[in-house]
Amino acid sequence: MGKQIMKVRKYKKGDSHSYTLGITVTIELLKRKPELAEQIFLHSSFSQGEGYRQIQVLAQQHQIAIEYNDKAFSILSQKENCFAIGVFRTYFQRLAENKSHLLLVNPSNAGNMGTILRTAAGFGLEDVGIIRPAVDLFDPKAVRAAMGAVFSIRHIYFDTFEDYRHQYPKQHCYPFMLNSSTPLGEMQFQEPAVLIFGNEATGLPDTFGDCGSSVVIPHSSVIDSLNLPVAASIAMYEFTKARGKDRSV
Amino acid sequence: MGKQIMKVRKYKKGDSHSYTLGITVTIELLKRKPELAEQIFLHSSFSQGEGYRQIQVLAQQHQIAIEYNDKAFSILSQKENCFAIGVFRTYFQRLAENKSHLLLVNPSNAGNMGTILRTAAGFGLEDVGIIRPAVDLFDPKAVRAAMGAVFSIRHIYFDTFEDYRHQYPKQHCYPFMLNSSTPLGEMQFQEPAVLIFGNEATGLPDTFGDCGSSVVIPHSSVIDSLNLPVAASIAMYEFTKARGKDRSV
Repeated sequence: MGKQIMKVRKYKKGDSHSYTLGITVTIELLKRKPELAEQIFLHSSFSQGEGYRQIQVLAQQHQIAIEYNDKAFSILSQKENCFAIGVFRTYFQRLAENKSHLLLVNPSNAGNMGTILRTAAGFGLEDVGIIRPAVDLFDPKAVRAAMGAVFSIRHIYFDTFEDYRHQYPKQHCYPFMLNSSTPLGEMQFQEPAVLIFGNEATGLPDTFGDCGSSVVIPHSSVIDSLNLPVAASIAMYEFTKARGKDRSV
Repeated sequence: MGKQIMKVRKYKKGDSHSYTLGITVTIELLKRKPELAEQIFLHSSFSQGEGYRQIQVLAQQHQIAIEYNDKAFSILSQKENCFAIGVFRTYFQRLAENKSHLLLVNPSNAGNMGTILRTAAGFGLEDVGIIRPAVDLFDPKAVRAAMGAVFSIRHIYFDTFEDYRHQYPKQHCYPFMLNSSTPLGEMQFQEPAVLIFGNEATGLPDTFGDCGSSVVIPHSSVIDSLNLPVAASIAMYEFTKARGKDRSV
């Protein structure tokens, strides 16, 4: 045990600290947000390969304490193949006012949230609003599913859609709704835009149809809907692809 | 207990029977593959709403026994909100020789497999080959993530890619690889095609670059790769969208 003993307990919504569970995501923390990292736990069975070396170098560079603490793993991780844990301070960051956003309304699954953030970071949509009630972006499951992309994203929570609009009135609204008559491939997006997605089970309330130009990703009647991260990812792909074309013209 | 007592045990790879865990996916089984359904278990706390009524009607129509059996739930389901379970015979079905296929090489996660099948069914790519070692398509987690789409898909396992090619030589091969120089949006797909995806962690071996025209979904360097179901879904979206355009010309 180090001198400064940190109380290790499972993350709860709104906690001031959360955890990166795994080697890759811990390295991402140390690379992208070292100023937020407070401590690294390593498991005694962590074999000294490339990941081990990277964590050692980065932690030393940013003066972050490393501690072997197998108990922390039994408290924090259900996965057997977790050998490194980073402890970091949670945060919020205002969205860019003139950029395009992603807005998630009542997302309920941490893994889905993480997967969406991973795609968002990959396609350069780095501003994400979230309307409560919603899963916590710093839930370690979301952080892990995002593969570290969470540290490249600006995000902020709102109690209502109106609160979001009040703070960010410039974005053109594109709610994704199954009953829309405009297929994704035909939508002419105007920037800055906000791509809006509803809850996994219920989608967006009908009232969102009035806030802008609704969009649908056409699919056969064999399925009721696409999985949320899949739908959001296809939308982000198509949206940023169109953007690329506009720029090259 | 009914007269014919069925031995209830957790599904293992290759078993002759598997399970639909949940109301929606059990209804899908009864609608799409009633001939494979052998038994329905209901939980005693299942409240009699629309789902209950549908299961009763479909089971009666296809003469499938319904049994209240809370013990089956404690054996088969970890989820608290599971109130209906269908028991069905597993199967394989030859792929259509002249249609486009999806080929998954060494997929390792059941939830991912299910999500991919859901998108495949939604975009009308109903023939899926799987190269071993691979997760089991009838793993109840895959069946559940597919939301019943598994029952609309033809699928077959192969020991090697060469085995697949031997049986299905007509398909133009499009391996998705991070080191490809052709972005998805610029690929001119020829049908019948086979869209090929590698393992979640390792992607496709380099040798796949020689089997056809490799494709990449461009993304920023902020992420190492897209999540597998996300990448496969974006590919299927773009592929079937292009197909729609060709047809309308």
